[in-house]
Formats: sequence, structure tokens, C-alpha cells
Amino acid sequence: MDFFSQLKATTQKNHSLLCVGLDPDTSLLPSGISLLDFNKAIIDATADKVCAYKPNLAFFESKGARGWEILQQTIEYIPREIPVIADAKRGDIGNTSKAYAKAIFEYLGAGAITVSPYLGYDSLTPFTKYENKAVFVLCLTSNQGAADFQLQVIKEKDQERALYQAVAEKAELWNTNRNIGLVVGANYPSEIKSLRYKHPNFTFLVPGIGAQKGDLKAVMDAGLNTSGHGLIINSSRQILYSSREKDFAFAAAATAETLRCEINQYR
Amino acid sequence: MDFFSQLKATTQKNHSLLCVGLDPDTSLLPSGISLLDFNKAIIDATADKVCAYKPNLAFFESKGARGWEILQQTIEYIPREIPVIADAKRGDIGNTSKAYAKAIFEYLGAGAITVSPYLGYDSLTPFTKYENKAVFVLCLTSNQGAADFQLQVIKEKDQERALYQAVAEKAELWNTNRNIGLVVGANYPSEIKSLRYKHPNFTFLVPGIGAQKGDLKAVMDAGLNTSGHGLIINSSRQILYSSREKDFAFAAAATAETLRCEINQYR
Repeated sequence: MDFFSQLKATTQKNHSLLCVGLDPDTSLLPSGISLLDFNKAIIDATADKVCAYKPNLAFFESKGARGWEILQQTIEYIPREIPVIADAKRGDIGNTSKAYAKAIFEYLGAGAITVSPYLGYDSLTPFTKYENKAVFVLCLTSNQGAADFQLQVIKEKDQERALYQAVAEKAELWNTNRNIGLVVGANYPSEIKSLRYKHPNFTFLVPGIGAQKGDLKAVMDAGLNTSGHGLIINSSRQILYSSREKDFAFAAAATAETLRCEINQYR
Repeated sequence: MDFFSQLKATTQKNHSLLCVGLDPDTSLLPSGISLLDFNKAIIDATADKVCAYKPNLAFFESKGARGWEILQQTIEYIPREIPVIADAKRGDIGNTSKAYAKAIFEYLGAGAITVSPYLGYDSLTPFTKYENKAVFVLCLTSNQGAADFQLQVIKEKDQERALYQAVAEKAELWNTNRNIGLVVGANYPSEIKSLRYKHPNFTFLVPGIGAQKGDLKAVMDAGLNTSGHGLIINSSRQILYSSREKDFAFAAAATAETLRCEINQYR
């Protein structure tokens, strides 16, 4: 099954648009638990509350080869019906992107990846050509530095628009396999609204709820498509570190459940 | 010693501005040799001809955890005095970039990294704050897709300039630890010339010579700084796959030596 069909099925089954981001920061884990056991406990506690999981590669790579093993084991542990988005922010010239695609889609078996658009079309093709996989292109990110380039106005022929809008428009042109989505930060509800208007068919992966303080209601109002889908609301730290004691999994389940319901309130 | 001092020392000792890119593509290796042994043979054959090595993470990640082990062993095998640039094209929000920096600088022990600027200032700070390490920011890349965004004209106040120029200008502002460099493709000699004029102190990491067909003489004329430095000329495939038979290391040494001398002719 392709990524977006799997996403739809899991969204319906779990009645959820919540994605749990797996950003296991060793310095924040409850004492005495291994990275892998922490991830497994979080997955066990939330698997009936999510539409997807999003492991963040940086937190595994900081442990080197062993981290990549844990990443692989974590992805294998996720129930097969739940889609996995590898948050990797990759993007390079063609033959290098091809090797990254092999790493993420074939070696790790993830269903989707996040990519950076800076290198343009031919840096994304090696990912999008995997027709059953999805490619979430960074569009407008939730950090302050988004203003440095993403919000700058670019001039092309007679048109003026922000770089992030140009990225969304190009992504639309490049979406011949219908497997592209966009990453848009939760702190930009009005930009999400205009992106939704121009791109009714894109799914937006939205980080920045919770630890990064986006306004959930505004995001939902702005970003849902006409069938009440089209959003993947990610929360990482708020859920993973709800408690840093032995009850962390219980606390994560409770926070995830609250967030799942809150999201559904606004659908 | 910090990266740029190490680069200068190796450049002088080996009389070389040549960087060998370690992009070990299994499908192109001579038959019967392991990835690690291939890398070691290439390093043995070229260590007296280079100013730096640039392992490309994608080609290791496509082998998963075992690939990261080989990457670590490859970096460990490189003589300590030769600087290592991890070609990783990373860049994410602050706490994630921090984890990537830990992976590249602490776990792998690389002296420098390539990063993507799309997320702006706070995505780069976690890397640049390692004062002894260097951070090469993607500016103008050698692939066709560079035209999609990097060459677009952006308007800021009364100024109009290409996105890649804005990236270079911001990188200059952010260079408070004097440890930033730029990645500029060899196929853009006139852009390199104007970047050199505006940014006399930046070191440019230049891919695209060889397999990607940049014009070496034009690049050297345009990019050298007033002391005959400021360029790292990278070649990967042209050197690694000079021969795909048992004599591959001998052939790699010969190609690297030819390129080293050709580069020096134009200094």
C-alpha cells in the first residue's frame, strides 16, 4: 500500500491526525532506560492514538552506528500498518540523493522522508520516483530562522511571492507521482490558510505544536482540507517527556490522548 | 588545531588544493573488495596529494548501521593531520541541529560539515558554535536544480540579488567565529568571481570538477584569494573510479596527482 493510503487507513482506524515524533534525547530520558526500550514503551503507549510516527534521525545519529541500529529496530517495532516518516531533511545532487533514498526507503524501510528543497528539482526526483513512498518538502519551518530565507520575497517574471510559496508551487509542478507533501510550521496559521487555498491536495506535516507553542485551533481551521484531512499534526517533546519518571509511558499515553481529542474537536 | 589552520598546514605540506571526495558507490567498486578496504586503499594512494578528504554520508548510510561503522573506521584511518569534511548537507531546528553536530563533530570526529541554509540562522548556530570546526554552507550548487531557487532573485528592502548571494551575505554576518565557508559549484566561474570579490575571506569548497565537468582554469582564476588559497577543489568519482580493475588505487593516485598538478599550474 502506498504511504498516503496507509496514512488514510490509520487516520480512520485510530480516529487521529496526531503524529508522534520520536526524538529520543538521552539527556531527557528517565534514568536507567535504554534508548530502544524507551522508544518501544512510547510506541506501545501511543500506537492506538496516532496516524503516524516520525523518528528524527539526528537523535539516533548522535549515537553513531549503534544509533542507526536502534533506529532500525525502532522502525521495525512500529506496527506495520502505521506509516513512518523519517525526519531526515536530506537533499543533495542526484547520485547522492539516490543513495539517501536507498538508505531511508530500502534500508530503514520508512514510508516517507522529509527533504530540503534548496538544491531544486533533481535533488528531489531520486526520492519521489519511489511511487509508494512520500516526500515531505520543507516549505515554511517553525523556527525563527525561517525569516532569513523562506519568508524573503522572490521575483520571477512578473510575479512576487515568498520563497516558501515558490517552493510550494514548484512542489505542485513536480508532484507527478502524487506523493509529495509539505512541512509547514504550526506558528504560521495564516500562511497555512493561503497554502491550503492554493494547494488543496497537499498533505501538510505540521511540527511546532506543544514544545514549540503553535496554536492548534488556528492551524486546524486553516489547514484541514474539505474532507477533514490533509494535516499531520506532529508532537515530539511534549509527549515523549510528559514525565521523566518511571511513569513516562503512562504520561505519554495520557498527553497523546489529550492531544488526539483536542485535534479531533477542531475537525 | 582548528580546521582552517589544519587545512592551511596540509595544503602547504602536500602543495595541494585537491580534496578527494569519498563517495564509495558499491556498484562501481572493483569486484571482491570491501567498502572499507577500498577507502583505505584510496586514502593510502592519495594521502600525500590532498589538502582534505570529504566522505559523503549518503554512500555510507545506504548500508545502514554497518555503513556508519565503515564511515567511522574510514575517518579514523585518515592521517590525523589531514582535515576531514563530512559531506552531510544537514540543517534542522536548533535542538535537532545540535544532535547532528554531536553526531558529526563528536561521534565521527570530522573537522567540518556541509550544511543547508534553508532553515536560516538558528539551524546553523549549533554547528558554528564548535569554534575549532568548520561549517560549509551550501551556496550555489553544481546541479541543474540550482536554478529552481538558488538563482532566483530576491528583494529585500531596496536590494535585489540572487538567493545564493543572500545566503553568502548572511553567512558573512553569521561568521563571528570565523569558521564558515561556502559550497560553490565549479560550473559557475563568473558567480565564483563575484562571490570572491564580495567575500575575500571565505574559503570555497568547490565540487563539480571532473565527473561533473566544471572548467578548472576558470574556477581557479575566479576563486583564488590574494594569497593563492581560499579554494578546496573536490573531485570524487573521477578519482575513485579511474579504474575499476585491481589497479584502481594506482589509477586513483595517478589521476589525483595529475589533478593536483593541474590545479597548481593555475595558482
